[in-house]
Amino acid sequence: MPQSIAFLGLGIMGLPMAGHLLQKSGGKLTVYNRTKVKADALAKQGATVADSPAAAAKGADVIFVCVSDTPDVEAMIFGENGLASTAKPGSVVVDHSTISPMATKSFAQRLAAKSIALIDAPVSGGDTGAKNGTLSIMCGGDKSAFDRVLPLLQCYGKTITHCGDSGQGQATKLVNQVLVLGTLLSVCEAMTLVKKSGLDPQTTLAAVGAGAAASWQLQNLGPKIAAGDFAPGFRCDLAAKDLRLVLEFVDQQELALPGIALVRQLYNAVISNGGAGDGTQAMFKALAMLNGWGG
Amino acid sequence: MPQSIAFLGLGIMGLPMAGHLLQKSGGKLTVYNRTKVKADALAKQGATVADSPAAAAKGADVIFVCVSDTPDVEAMIFGENGLASTAKPGSVVVDHSTISPMATKSFAQRLAAKSIALIDAPVSGGDTGAKNGTLSIMCGGDKSAFDRVLPLLQCYGKTITHCGDSGQGQATKLVNQVLVLGTLLSVCEAMTLVKKSGLDPQTTLAAVGAGAAASWQLQNLGPKIAAGDFAPGFRCDLAAKDLRLVLEFVDQQELALPGIALVRQLYNAVISNGGAGDGTQAMFKALAMLNGWGG
Repeated sequence: MPQSIAFLGLGIMGLPMAGHLLQKSGGKLTVYNRTKVKADALAKQGATVADSPAAAAKGADVIFVCVSDTPDVEAMIFGENGLASTAKPGSVVVDHSTISPMATKSFAQRLAAKSIALIDAPVSGGDTGAKNGTLSIMCGGDKSAFDRVLPLLQCYGKTITHCGDSGQGQATKLVNQVLVLGTLLSVCEAMTLVKKSGLDPQTTLAAVGAGAAASWQLQNLGPKIAAGDFAPGFRCDLAAKDLRLVLEFVDQQELALPGIALVRQLYNAVISNGGAGDGTQAMFKALAMLNGWGG
Repeated sequence: MPQSIAFLGLGIMGLPMAGHLLQKSGGKLTVYNRTKVKADALAKQGATVADSPAAAAKGADVIFVCVSDTPDVEAMIFGENGLASTAKPGSVVVDHSTISPMATKSFAQRLAAKSIALIDAPVSGGDTGAKNGTLSIMCGGDKSAFDRVLPLLQCYGKTITHCGDSGQGQATKLVNQVLVLGTLLSVCEAMTLVKKSGLDPQTTLAAVGAGAAASWQLQNLGPKIAAGDFAPGFRCDLAAKDLRLVLEFVDQQELALPGIALVRQLYNAVISNGGAGDGTQAMFKALAMLNGWGG
């Protein structure tokens, strides 16, 4: 495994992922986070804490980035004191953020001019997956660079796939979100029908949950909707951000995907009614509002 | 178990279900089908073949109906030579057809006037489930009548649920179809995005299929869409019929379920382009048409 690792972005996902690298990779770990105090626990376990992306990246063989959105990644790589100003030729940048596939291709080209490889590597599995080291990681970029970082990804990834060239990891993540949130629309509409029909939710879920109607979304979020539990696993505002990336891509390609466009509209309704911090199952609330049950 | 059983409607579902009753129930079976030749195989195994619903139902303790749509059920029960003209007081009619919950309630009331119970018992699991005896059966109606027929239902049902009063089995089936076909919309949109992105379908399905995006529809129909295999498990024209029942109910209740209304529109497009006999995964073809890939 590489000797020197940098990890930039210690949020709800990045912090446990960096922790796994520290414990399992055998490498020297340097971390950076805008809010420095979040690095304290890792510092106590032996990580070096840097003051900027540039300082963290200096001399590193592999540099991980795990932030929220396209501009955050651009700033982390190319901004003032960005990692590109110090990263050495031959190093690999692994971007775990979920961002634009198009922007990813552009970032990869700009880094390639400095002989730095970029692997886009968005994850799914949530903070639980990050803590337990069971994330799915969807990777795009040069295959030999992917192969070099694969042992590091295995520190916290369970299903790790090389999906194709630069940007194809991000494209695969968008496919994943279309499935996740589109399936959840069917669950929310079904639970609306359950309510209107006067059916018992638990009995109904047991009756339909084992056959062709079965899904992860139904099994995990159906009971929460029935119980009125809208606490977040994955938050509505982050779902809306991913849907923005989906629809940006869809619009750039002049692609017609009416279902997922509808899902975005329903999240707009949830968020404009104060539900940004709710879990994705709060899409049910938009249907409830449409049907006069809440606001 | 009851001694005398009638089974009306020997289609792709009814024929194997009646076969299970003949083999396992220990009762005397009389069958009726409009096209009489379809009863030949059962006749050879010992079933009596009747010339009308009335003739089949005469003296039966339990009378099964398994036809296509609301008017078919009404004709089988209340039409000329319908079962209601001969069925004895205290008998139970079990309707395995997927029909209107509202009409079911009305039929149950009309039969109750003759001291005949009606259990609505739509199934899911397809012809494979019927052959293997692994159907899910969603039942509505009087609980004591349900309990009396349960041992017979166990001849071909795996998950058998009493969902509530008359019509609630049908309502639960509608919930099931909203989940099945709404989830399939997300699968078809995801496969459209896969195609437009130039992703490899098999790699993508492997990358996303194990996590929060997982569903029966993705696992079973995703690979078929990728392979251009539109052979029916469940046919588009029957899906459109079930969606008509969903939307009839939704409209009667003035309920807003925009996602499943969209799904019906896409099936209209598939059917008007000659896809009535395709499998439900042909919803992908409607999206392909929207995106200029086929017609």
